[in-house]
Amino acid sequence: MSFEVHILGSNSAAPAHGRHHTSQVLCIQDLQIMIDCGEATQLQMKKYGLKKNRLSHIFISHLHGDHFLGLIGLLSTMHLNGRKTDLYLYGPVGLSEIIQLHLKYANTRLSYKIHFKELQGEESELILDHPKISVYTIPLQHRIPCTGFLIKEKPKPKKLIKDRISELSVQHINTLKKGKDVVDDTGKVIYKNTDYTLPAKKSRSYAYCSDTKYNEDIIPLVDSVDLLYHEGTFLHENLERAEATYHTTAKQAAIFAQKAKVGKLLIGHFSNRYKDLSPILEEAKTEFDNTALAEEGKVFTIEE
Amino acid sequence: MSFEVHILGSNSAAPAHGRHHTSQVLCIQDLQIMIDCGEATQLQMKKYGLKKNRLSHIFISHLHGDHFLGLIGLLSTMHLNGRKTDLYLYGPVGLSEIIQLHLKYANTRLSYKIHFKELQGEESELILDHPKISVYTIPLQHRIPCTGFLIKEKPKPKKLIKDRISELSVQHINTLKKGKDVVDDTGKVIYKNTDYTLPAKKSRSYAYCSDTKYNEDIIPLVDSVDLLYHEGTFLHENLERAEATYHTTAKQAAIFAQKAKVGKLLIGHFSNRYKDLSPILEEAKTEFDNTALAEEGKVFTIEE
Repeated sequence: MSFEVHILGSNSAAPAHGRHHTSQVLCIQDLQIMIDCGEATQLQMKKYGLKKNRLSHIFISHLHGDHFLGLIGLLSTMHLNGRKTDLYLYGPVGLSEIIQLHLKYANTRLSYKIHFKELQGEESELILDHPKISVYTIPLQHRIPCTGFLIKEKPKPKKLIKDRISELSVQHINTLKKGKDVVDDTGKVIYKNTDYTLPAKKSRSYAYCSDTKYNEDIIPLVDSVDLLYHEGTFLHENLERAEATYHTTAKQAAIFAQKAKVGKLLIGHFSNRYKDLSPILEEAKTEFDNTALAEEGKVFTIEE
Repeated sequence: MSFEVHILGSNSAAPAHGRHHTSQVLCIQDLQIMIDCGEATQLQMKKYGLKKNRLSHIFISHLHGDHFLGLIGLLSTMHLNGRKTDLYLYGPVGLSEIIQLHLKYANTRLSYKIHFKELQGEESELILDHPKISVYTIPLQHRIPCTGFLIKEKPKPKKLIKDRISELSVQHINTLKKGKDVVDDTGKVIYKNTDYTLPAKKSRSYAYCSDTKYNEDIIPLVDSVDLLYHEGTFLHENLERAEATYHTTAKQAAIFAQKAKVGKLLIGHFSNRYKDLSPILEEAKTEFDNTALAEEGKVFTIEE
């Protein structure tokens, strides 16, 4: 089953060099969720063949325009398309107020319901407990309140060995799927789990950290994730600028990835000053080899 | 001197068929002004080679997203570019409140000053009295308060016949430029105006009417303009839908243009239901031949 991260944009501040503002769509099993929604995200979705009405959850990290100015347009288009399905929206204080003000002056009542959860952002919290995934916040350090997101698949059922279970009852099969032995009233094992099952497929994880200054305090939260998106706005020669603007350098992002023992690092949120991004990638790779640039149009897959 | 209308987008509701939301940039002499600013307008400006920092005035017709959701991003990018020049912004009640709320939560103080004029919209008013142009509002009939704009060049000075004025004083030349004769203290004509000047070039005019239902009441306001942009969201076979949504059909827009005796008609604000726009153009042309589709990327020039 899929676990894909579709990059729709990853440029910081103003759009430049044909690069769009930040947005990502995650296709996890049959779920489709969005993280951040910069201006023109709905156009990028169309360009890359992603269906707007399949989105169930949208997570907004913070209220700088390059991370959410496409949201009102996206919500509006879903309304015009006649969406009826509830939408679950997560964002900082102020996001709901901004949306309500836009809707008020547009005299629009959306065709669907938005369930809005306001993020507190100071400590990591579980914000979505879905049958397929859990989503936790990651407190980030930026110029305004900002939150990263950790998305983890729920533990999966053990895989049954089909030709050994044909005569078992549903009740017994469900017990085996959970990884337990089937026992009788006296506690005696009737069906030993390992005789009937194969190990469950691994539960994959993805962490999104943007925008933020370098902060080792959050390493325990993203420890050993399969895939980490971390901003690397500047080259390390611009460390002073990165610190002043609460951003991270490519080198720092890679050191962070290495310390957190992640599987793979995606670097994004590129400054306009870099038309050519290869120095960003090279700098990161010197610290953490399994790094890629989060360039729009790319799809990163976490294998099962 | 130029009078150009650059179409950056003219699709209604949701972007579709590769067409963007409404925005236009007018280059009039050395002025550069914008009417409406749908999502991704800043990207369209870049695509078509228009400089953001040359914009001095922005006019927003109404607060439906397809007409202004690119504005906050544009204002933000001009700030990031270090703009210092004042910007003059015109829009309905609510626009300033929305901008202020965005800036508050982004914790951003713009690098330049915005002079905001709130449009009343119920009667035509002079909202800009500039040395080069005058701008008047056109009250439109839409689902929410909506204003069109009439842009007229100021009367131009008469053109001097150079080889006849070399011995005249500056004072006398200025009198002749205004179209007057130069007279002595007794009122006797010393220099007859028509001996020294050629007629002034004509003052050109452009009217923008979108979004609105068909409304003949405003014909006197746009009477004989050189170029009229009028929405023609639907074909006339969808008249009922046009009326219910406070829009105009292509046929109605053309009848309006014909009754207003305009020089040329541009039709825009196309419904998503039309991938092929040629039926819209054909329908309008049956009523008013000098019609063109306001397709993005096109530039319409009014000659002097």
